Amino acid sequence: MKLLEDRIREEGTVKPGDVLKVDAFLNHQCDITLFDKMGEEWARLFEGTRIDKILTIEASGIGIACMAARHFQNVPVVFAKKAQSINLDGEQYSTSIYSFTKQKEFPVIVGKKFLTEGEHVLIIDDFLANGNALNGLLHICESAGVVVEGFGIAVEKGFQGGGDALRQRGYRVESLARIRTMDATDRSIEFY
Amino acid sequence: MKLLEDRIREEGTVKPGDVLKVDAFLNHQCDITLFDKMGEEWARLFEGTRIDKILTIEASGIGIACMAARHFQNVPVVFAKKAQSINLDGEQYSTSIYSFTKQKEFPVIVGKKFLTEGEHVLIIDDFLANGNALNGLLHICESAGVVVEGFGIAVEKGFQGGGDALRQRGYRVESLARIRTMDATDRSIEFY
Repeated sequence: MKLLEDRIREEGTVKPGDVLKVDAFLNHQCDITLFDKMGEEWARLFEGTRIDKILTIEASGIGIACMAARHFQNVPVVFAKKAQSINLDGEQYSTSIYSFTKQKEFPVIVGKKFLTEGEHVLIIDDFLANGNALNGLLHICESAGVVVEGFGIAVEKGFQGGGDALRQRGYRVESLARIRTMDATDRSIEFY
Repeated sequence: MKLLEDRIREEGTVKPGDVLKVDAFLNHQCDITLFDKMGEEWARLFEGTRIDKILTIEASGIGIACMAARHFQNVPVVFAKKAQSINLDGEQYSTSIYSFTKQKEFPVIVGKKFLTEGEHVLIIDDFLANGNALNGLLHICESAGVVVEGFGIAVEKGFQGGGDALRQRGYRVESLARIRTMDATDRSIEFY
């Protein structure tokens, strides 16, 4: 999606350690007009696919997912919570995700009543790198018996392999900006 | 706002310890149509007021704030981050908020470049109880020198006093559902 790629080129910052900062428009300050266009684009890409619900993970996915839902007949958005500790009361699907950014493992939960067996789900998130967070959401979706129709991703760091691993497992991954290489020394970014 | 009050009566659950669960439509599963109507109502209430930016706090405020922004000429939404540890590199406004729900103090940050002196800001959040989180955001707004035009709150637990304390300080607080009393034994909820 040229609009997002251009924005990343203009306002994104490549930092050492394969970090791409897009906090000016995507995940700290949110450009609502951009989010709306992104939602429109995912709706175009998934046109004809049954989507009953959008699943995302707090915090940065929420705004994007809510704005996107408008373009999917206002389906409900469920966001997985990063819990302090897993309350194993049986009312929640839970899994554990390792975050390279935060260098630690954290539990993620979704209330069982918010994912119903047989529902068709679109998973939306701001970033896809190694795929740990999305694999955690997939694990929850498998536990719930929902049908994952695909992934709507804003920025995929293609060189980190998480997206291709999902594609090889047969999942549809629609990344609006897919980065082939990026370089912190000359701050260059090349898209697929 | 009758729509929200009705929804709280129908799907909210009062739990012991003054806890109101509204996770079916507000802060775990998100009803996008409801969020849109809430945004429309805040826009009506703040009509004629200059709003340059909406400020909220992760995670539950983000979806509501993004949907509301559409009704404020798509102004940017900035969400304060609950940090693991405060990175005092001078590029962030930071404060500390005590959460009664989580029984601990946690740092909250906003990138300095995302709040500009003289900007007029509307603060939006899902809940207002004792006001700790909002006072933290106010503290950050004071540091940044922005003008806080008011607060748009989904659910105010009026009996916990945080809203009235803000009103006494001269702030405009527009809560769409303002609870006078609620009772976990008979599950009753009375609004103002």
